Amino acid sequence: MSEFKPRSADYATRVLASFAKQAFMTHIGAKIVHVAPGEVDVDLPARDDLNQQHGFFHAGTTSAIADSAAGYAAFSLFPADRGVLTTEYKINLLNPGRGERLIARGRVMKPGRTLTVCRSDVFGITGGEETIVATGLFTMMAVEGFTN
Amino acid sequence: MSEFKPRSADYATRVLASFAKQAFMTHIGAKIVHVAPGEVDVDLPARDDLNQQHGFFHAGTTSAIADSAAGYAAFSLFPADRGVLTTEYKINLLNPGRGERLIARGRVMKPGRTLTVCRSDVFGITGGEETIVATGLFTMMAVEGFTN
Amino acid sequence: MSEFKPRSADYATRVLASFAKQAFMTHIGAKIVHVAPGEVDVDLPARDDLNQQHGFFHAGTTSAIADSAAGYAAFSLFPADRGVLTTEYKINLLNPGRGERLIARGRVMKPGRTLTVCRSDVFGITGGEETIVATGLFTMMAVEGFTN
Amino acid sequence: MSEFKPRSADYATRVLASFAKQAFMTHIGAKIVHVAPGEVDVDLPARDDLNQQHGFFHAGTTSAIADSAAGYAAFSLFPADRGVLTTEYKINLLNPGRGERLIARGRVMKPGRTLTVCRSDVFGITGGEETIVATGLFTMMAVEGFTN
Repeated sequence: MSEFKPRSADYATRVLASFAKQAFMTHIGAKIVHVAPGEVDVDLPARDDLNQQHGFFHAGTTSAIADSAAGYAAFSLFPADRGVLTTEYKINLLNPGRGERLIARGRVMKPGRTLTVCRSDVFGITGGEETIVATGLFTMMAVEGFTN
Repeated sequence: MSEFKPRSADYATRVLASFAKQAFMTHIGAKIVHVAPGEVDVDLPARDDLNQQHGFFHAGTTSAIADSAAGYAAFSLFPADRGVLTTEYKINLLNPGRGERLIARGRVMKPGRTLTVCRSDVFGITGGEETIVATGLFTMMAVEGFTN
Repeated sequence: MSEFKPRSADYATRVLASFAKQAFMTHIGAKIVHVAPGEVDVDLPARDDLNQQHGFFHAGTTSAIADSAAGYAAFSLFPADRGVLTTEYKINLLNPGRGERLIARGRVMKPGRTLTVCRSDVFGITGGEETIVATGLFTMMAVEGFTN
Repeated sequence: MSEFKPRSADYATRVLASFAKQAFMTHIGAKIVHVAPGEVDVDLPARDDLNQQHGFFHAGTTSAIADSAAGYAAFSLFPADRGVLTTEYKINLLNPGRGERLIARGRVMKPGRTLTVCRSDVFGITGGEETIVATGLFTMMAVEGFTN
């Protein structure tokens, strides 16, 4: 169970509605498969056009879903009149992006009025077995004036 | 002029040939527009399906071309029997990814036998005017046994 | 219990002997209080000359013990003829460095022949209560020719 | 010449006064040797108790002066009623911290009302020759209610 309390009752609906507007996420076939306060998982099935030159998931796609999972994990704790922007992140690519699918698990480590720091780990999944592909730290900013 | 000397005469051909095999880069429409020893620029024209929910370039695409520019900048200094892998990077998103196109400029800061550290800056370009969108630091690894 | 197996029987002795040679760690009063394969905790009691201008632990000291804990966590898994160098790290300062003492917990996330990636979390402790102060990701390198 | 305009006329005095209060910086013998809008250089003479186990500057001291230089570079552009906090940074250690002294050059890359992103490069100096030791990216936050 999550240790955080959302500041708006419809946080899950807002997360899913905002994610649906991300053309790039739709474009690559990513989906949100878990939402809880401070927690979002993004799933990405393998597809040839997401690969780099050795047939693994491109670091760009791995990072993109790690970022989305972290950003929506933060957004799930924001008040309803705030949007989310990634201000910076750092990612370590630990193993080749191999698998039938990738799953990115974004988790809030420290919520804040302005900045929220999240961790996001990406795993490659093949036949139910998970291998860690990447781990990252993300600083998300709550922004007034747009609401995702 | 670059301060570095390539270790293989055909470094530019190898960079372009490897980049051409990156399905994800082709998929998003990215192109290499500059190659010199320790330097690679990647250009990405705007396209609706590369955007996030506010109509700017998605941080995932910004990061992907920053990473590619840095990776091939490193690769341009490798001996001919080494491939390149990104081991980690950190990126600060400084301004919205706005513009007719993005250009990522990857530059080697410290070449090494195993690890090469690069900087990569991404600019949004509209009508010839450049605005910095992101800056990042990347650690690239020279890997035996595949040659990109 | 640790999930890792050390490659030398005397890993704990080697960790402590190397740490004892770090003048800077001795100088600030830091001590290793836990060693297991892939795990090292460093403890730092509060002292006026370790502070920044608001009376908290300086980010420099927080980072230094986070780095030491991560480095020796990696080193604990190295063969006896390898030393350790930090190649890069990223740290998020989550809360002011407040407390009677800081404790940094370094944990290996991905061991490797050349590179080992670690996480290190720093907590401020007051009267037995822990508050997270910082979290970081570290890339450590195994180096031949010196043995720490 | 700096490209930035300070928002308070006495920015240099405020930078030096705040730095003087940092016990840890005084303790290790660091000094500010250059201040301009968005630019601060911190100098650190070699001293045995700042070293790690191989006789080089400890990564912790290298990072600490890189952080101070970046923080005060940001602070030099703040209005007079704001203090500065490091929220996160990433540093690549490029060469051993060798030299008669280290110099850290902090430079603002993107000023902002809340967040200011800086770059900081550290060089080892021996007999007038400079070698790059580290490069980092820092996110600084302007904080109301304390003024450094």
